[in-house]
Amino acid sequence: MSDLHVYDTTLRDGAQQEGLNLSVQDKLTIASHLDELGVGFIEGGWPGANPKDTEFFARAATDLTLKNATLAAFGATRRAGGAASTDPLVRALLDSQAPVVTLVAKSHVGHVERALRTTKAENLEMIRDTVTFLRGEGRRVFVDAEHFFDGYAVDRAYAIEALRAVFESGGEVAALCDTNGGMLPGQVWDVVTDVTAALGLGSGPDGGAAGDARLGIHCHNDTGCAVANSMAAVDAGATHVQGTINGYGERTGNANLVTVVANLQLKVGQQVMEPHRLQEATRISHAISEITNVPAYSRQPYTGASAFAHKAGLHASAIKVDPDLYQHLDPKHVGNDMRMLISDMAGRASVELKAREIGIDLDPLKDEDSALVQRVLATVKDLELRGYTFDAADASFELLLRREIEGSLPDFFEVESWRVITDSQSSGAALSEATVKLTAGGRRVLRTGEGNGPVNALDHALRLALATAYPEIEHLELIDYRVRILDAAHGTDAVTRVLIETSDGETTWETIGVAANILEASWMALVESVTYGLLRAGVPAR
Amino acid sequence: MSDLHVYDTTLRDGAQQEGLNLSVQDKLTIASHLDELGVGFIEGGWPGANPKDTEFFARAATDLTLKNATLAAFGATRRAGGAASTDPLVRALLDSQAPVVTLVAKSHVGHVERALRTTKAENLEMIRDTVTFLRGEGRRVFVDAEHFFDGYAVDRAYAIEALRAVFESGGEVAALCDTNGGMLPGQVWDVVTDVTAALGLGSGPDGGAAGDARLGIHCHNDTGCAVANSMAAVDAGATHVQGTINGYGERTGNANLVTVVANLQLKVGQQVMEPHRLQEATRISHAISEITNVPAYSRQPYTGASAFAHKAGLHASAIKVDPDLYQHLDPKHVGNDMRMLISDMAGRASVELKAREIGIDLDPLKDEDSALVQRVLATVKDLELRGYTFDAADASFELLLRREIEGSLPDFFEVESWRVITDSQSSGAALSEATVKLTAGGRRVLRTGEGNGPVNALDHALRLALATAYPEIEHLELIDYRVRILDAAHGTDAVTRVLIETSDGETTWETIGVAANILEASWMALVESVTYGLLRAGVPAR
Repeated sequence: MSDLHVYDTTLRDGAQQEGLNLSVQDKLTIASHLDELGVGFIEGGWPGANPKDTEFFARAATDLTLKNATLAAFGATRRAGGAASTDPLVRALLDSQAPVVTLVAKSHVGHVERALRTTKAENLEMIRDTVTFLRGEGRRVFVDAEHFFDGYAVDRAYAIEALRAVFESGGEVAALCDTNGGMLPGQVWDVVTDVTAALGLGSGPDGGAAGDARLGIHCHNDTGCAVANSMAAVDAGATHVQGTINGYGERTGNANLVTVVANLQLKVGQQVMEPHRLQEATRISHAISEITNVPAYSRQPYTGASAFAHKAGLHASAIKVDPDLYQHLDPKHVGNDMRMLISDMAGRASVELKAREIGIDLDPLKDEDSALVQRVLATVKDLELRGYTFDAADASFELLLRREIEGSLPDFFEVESWRVITDSQSSGAALSEATVKLTAGGRRVLRTGEGNGPVNALDHALRLALATAYPEIEHLELIDYRVRILDAAHGTDAVTRVLIETSDGETTWETIGVAANILEASWMALVESVTYGLLRAGVPAR
Repeated sequence: MSDLHVYDTTLRDGAQQEGLNLSVQDKLTIASHLDELGVGFIEGGWPGANPKDTEFFARAATDLTLKNATLAAFGATRRAGGAASTDPLVRALLDSQAPVVTLVAKSHVGHVERALRTTKAENLEMIRDTVTFLRGEGRRVFVDAEHFFDGYAVDRAYAIEALRAVFESGGEVAALCDTNGGMLPGQVWDVVTDVTAALGLGSGPDGGAAGDARLGIHCHNDTGCAVANSMAAVDAGATHVQGTINGYGERTGNANLVTVVANLQLKVGQQVMEPHRLQEATRISHAISEITNVPAYSRQPYTGASAFAHKAGLHASAIKVDPDLYQHLDPKHVGNDMRMLISDMAGRASVELKAREIGIDLDPLKDEDSALVQRVLATVKDLELRGYTFDAADASFELLLRREIEGSLPDFFEVESWRVITDSQSSGAALSEATVKLTAGGRRVLRTGEGNGPVNALDHALRLALATAYPEIEHLELIDYRVRILDAAHGTDAVTRVLIETSDGETTWETIGVAANILEASWMALVESVTYGLLRAGVPAR
């Protein structure tokens, strides 16, 4: 196995992404997930500078047991003109008790002089002093050479001197950072190759200063090349790669660490982590997405929900023959699945494959199955014209399919009417109340439910109304709710599309509702969701 | 100016993205935007195979006037064993009247034999026959060599023969497609370099078969390297680049055409389009996003809303000194703006810069301004803990800031109460009705509004209630509405975050509301929205 350092900075650099806002508990949970994934290092935050992070490290010391990863605390070299041993932020790094300390240091003359407003010599002294001090306190020290590539372009000699200062003081890693993200792969390769030679690093017996000295790489995606830049650096000799889960990060994000690792392991053949861990990547990527509350980017390589989703009817026909005809590798390597998408582009093969995915075997040679596929296709294309997107609502598609198959979907209940009232209160907090009337288990039922909102109230009322006939309802939980108002252009009224994700504690499913009224659309998605839940529970109509 | 072909396939390959569902009108509008951007070619779809696309080309002939781009129709080489002149799908390509026809052809032996189920020889004949026929009918012909790189790896000679067949028949472009998306940049560079030499193309006086013969590149993002792969191909000699706006496309998407063009033009120095057109990229990227209804990816390089958004307090301090310290280029080159994000990571500099963005000049050296910044920061951090994200609700932040500055925000109205009732109807379509009570213009007002949904009804009721005192309200329109239910973990109740986007016909702004009840959160965002609208209109409190 390659000894490449896989260094995750989701909790520090990743947290600088717009819209990302993590609590201390969030960070601890994410850290456990990252540990499970098998990254080598978890950069937890900036203790001392960020109170939330100081608390994170304090709680990590007692609450977090890491089995694979080593915790790293991020900070900066000491203040200009001061001393590392008495610099409060440096001491905070020690107090964090993290075995690894990663210091951001200037390596760009322009930043030394205009951002830090100090001298080139003092900056080098800041590096040496801080690294030496922390080594003396028994910590492993990594250094992020901030703006390295831009600094190298302006004053190559000084940038390299900064790296030398790191290694001569006992630093283990000097990570070259493309902080502004403007580099292209060929340029990165050239610089890393040059720096490797200049420092005498590489595979020769000499090793290099301090024996274990490693060059690292830290990229951002401003030219759309973060992953390619990271790989170019590794190809040129870097043995430490930094990135974040789901490519979180400032501006366009950091290099997506899973994409880099998957590329190295599955495409280049450099074994970076145990295969069974990489197979957890999709699950973990989504689990972390749930915690960050940043909508998962479905088109993400390897782990995105769409990464192996096939829409074109032509592709589906070929995949029927052999999945490898349209996939660059087996999604199972990263724990993902192949999915057939149903849309107006779907062909007969798409419907057949989707049905098989659900467990319904249709025989295209049998007349009745063939007619069924035609009907389903026609219904789908019609609904899609009206705003439905089945490619994001698998459970609704399954119900549509089953409705076409005699006896495949029980008639669980019949809705008579529903109504929701929401009132503001003088205290400020609004109250919602919904009344649902339906027939189930041979009885007409009227129930009123309250909720923290109208959809919640409807959900409660619906489940109260079904509870007697279907006690199985109890375990269902509405876990996500997404609304989009679709264009009112072209002479038609605006419609609202609601996607609901429901969980029964074991798995989750998505259903869709489309209507002009948001609550009506929500109601439709709720009814589909509960119907699907009852189907999954295998209960008969009562 | 470089004569690189900039070839956009948003309307064809891009449309294969999960969740993307375009009407014919949508496609015509997008085509106009792409033309405005200045791409060289617009691939409109697959006429004959896709009825929607047949209609698109029919309407394009009369309704679409392109000033910069040339329209291309996509299709396939004739059926095996048939003849191009009588193949209905080939004839459909002619009927589309597009001056350029782009044919997908097999260049991978495995696909020829297992997907098409024909012979290597017949496949080459299919290419020659179809290209020759269309050339004879006066069309320019481009060919997409499907699965080229995978095919090259399996049988290099055959893959190259397929390309020869294209050029010998009069084809102008043979685009090498990484259809499954599994390539890495170094590999692409090697293959394109080899193929360029094998075909005798390149900058020599010989030119190559048919003089104008060009190699093209068509990449997907399955290894996160679509942009880097495209650039490697251009570096190795390709003179035709295919991609899509916003990187739309099957699975992980196609190469983002704007990112590739911006990189070539602004980083490599290869002028590919007129600078003033590239400056429209951000606006056009967002305009197309609105039409596709696929949420814009904020972290997209160059044109993403977050691409030049700075969150870390440390970065803000440096940017105060010089924006170039943390940006790889001036966002104005692509029509984007630098944005300071307000969050719990904000520092004093972030608030000062944000205030300046809004037009409020704070002097950090004046005691009262300094205290104000402190108060604002404290309020922001507290609200962010409760679920607010100001980095996506600029207008709400501005109101927060103005509330701290004496006399900066008029007291336009005072709300007494609100209530919403939604009823299902036996016809199915639900009705919503809201009643709002408030004081404005010295009068207590009670108004009831109806709407296609509860939020719409509240919005109407609110505006009806304010209409007498503030006729300026009339032009406001709610154009987007986003809801997220935030985690109920860690002992607290779930809260709902609502972001509303409002337009006054000239510009749009975003406001936020956070509460346990979705309608209460919506109400808060609505009130902020209308308040901001009145502020913008410059009216005094009445």
